[in-house]
Amino acid sequence: MNTKRSEVSAAVVRRLPRYYRCLVHLEQQGVVKTSSKELARIMDLTASQIRQDLNCFGGFGQQGYGYSVAALKSEIADILSLTSPRKMIQLGAGNLGKAIAGSVDFSSSGFELLAIFDTNEWIVGSEIKDFPVLSLDVLKDFCHEHHPVAASLCVPIEGAKVLLPLLVELGIRSFLNFSHYDIDYDNVAVENVYIADSVMTLSYKTAALEEEESL
Amino acid sequence: MNTKRSEVSAAVVRRLPRYYRCLVHLEQQGVVKTSSKELARIMDLTASQIRQDLNCFGGFGQQGYGYSVAALKSEIADILSLTSPRKMIQLGAGNLGKAIAGSVDFSSSGFELLAIFDTNEWIVGSEIKDFPVLSLDVLKDFCHEHHPVAASLCVPIEGAKVLLPLLVELGIRSFLNFSHYDIDYDNVAVENVYIADSVMTLSYKTAALEEEESL
Repeated sequence: MNTKRSEVSAAVVRRLPRYYRCLVHLEQQGVVKTSSKELARIMDLTASQIRQDLNCFGGFGQQGYGYSVAALKSEIADILSLTSPRKMIQLGAGNLGKAIAGSVDFSSSGFELLAIFDTNEWIVGSEIKDFPVLSLDVLKDFCHEHHPVAASLCVPIEGAKVLLPLLVELGIRSFLNFSHYDIDYDNVAVENVYIADSVMTLSYKTAALEEEESL
Repeated sequence: MNTKRSEVSAAVVRRLPRYYRCLVHLEQQGVVKTSSKELARIMDLTASQIRQDLNCFGGFGQQGYGYSVAALKSEIADILSLTSPRKMIQLGAGNLGKAIAGSVDFSSSGFELLAIFDTNEWIVGSEIKDFPVLSLDVLKDFCHEHHPVAASLCVPIEGAKVLLPLLVELGIRSFLNFSHYDIDYDNVAVENVYIADSVMTLSYKTAALEEEESL
C-alpha cells in the first residue's frame, strides 16, 4: 500500500472489515470477479464511494475491468494486517468473556488468543473453546514468557482501571475494550466496543421504518 | 426533525449513538454548553463534519453560540427514538445471551426487554438481571399477550434461521442480530453486530501504530 495507515480517515477504516467480510462471502460462493457496482449493492453504499475508499490505498483493479475477488481480499487482509496474527490475551472469563472467547474467530481477525485470565477460582483451570483459563496471579510470568502484545478486556470498568497500568507495563499495546473504561495512554491502539450503540442504531432504524409506513 | 430518517446517510446514522454518548458524558460532568469544536475534539472528527451531521436533521444551535448540552442531547434522543422504548424479547440465554442481557442497558437505548427465551431446561425458570428466562414453548402465547415488536437474537446461525419466520409471523419487526444469519425480509429493521469487525479494526490500528514507530 502507498498510503500510511494513520492517514486514512476513520470512516474508511471502519468500512474495511465489512469489505473483507463481503469478499470472503463472495469467494465462498465461488464468485471470481466483482465490480464496485456489485460491492455497492451488497454493502448498501454507492459505487463511487467504494472506488474512493479503495483509492485511499493506492487503488486496485482497472476502470471497466472490475476487481479479482481473491486479489482484492488478499490486499484488504494485508491492509488490515490479518496475515501475521499478533499474540493476545483476554482478561475476564465471566459471561462476556465466555461469549467473546467462545464465538469470535480471533485467528482470522488478526490475533492469536493465547489464554484467558480471571480471579474466580471456580473457573481457573478450565478451558473455553481450547483456551486455558489461568489465574490472574500468573499473568506477569505468562507475559514475560509469551510476550503477548494485545489484550481483550472483558472485565467491568473498575477491573479495567486497575489492570490497565499493569498490562501496559507488561508490554501490552493493543486493547479490544469491552469495559467502557476510557483508556487514555499514549502510543497504544484501542478499539472500544459499545454494544449499546448498535441497540440505539436499531431504535433509529425501527423509527425510520415506522415513519415510512405511516406516510 | 425536518428530514425523513430513511434519507439520512448510513454514516451519519452510525455516528448518532456516539454523539449521544458524548453528550451524556458531558452532562454528567456538569458541562452546560458545548461547541462543534469541542465535540470534534472528543469524537476525533472535524468541527465541520459535526456541523454537517447535525444539519442533516435541520440544525441545532446558532453559529457562534454553540450548543446547549441538554437540548442537543434531548434532540438526539428524539432522533434516535429513545424516548418511548419499544417492547423487546431476547432469544438465547447462553453465554452471549447472558452477557448481553446482563450488561446492555436496553431501557436507555430505545427498548424495553421483557423476557428471554431458551430451550435449555436448566436455564428456563431462572432470571438474568431480573429478566425471566422462559421456555421457547411459551413464545407464541407470550407474544400474543405482550406484543413485543423487537428481538435480540443471541442464538447460533442455525437457530436464527429456524426462528426468523416464526418471529416475523408473531409481529416482530426489529432485530438486533448477533447470529450472523443474513436476515432478508422486507419491511423489517435489522442491526447486525459483528464483533470480529472490531477485532479487525484493532488489528489495523495496531499496524498503524507500529508503522508510525518504525519511521
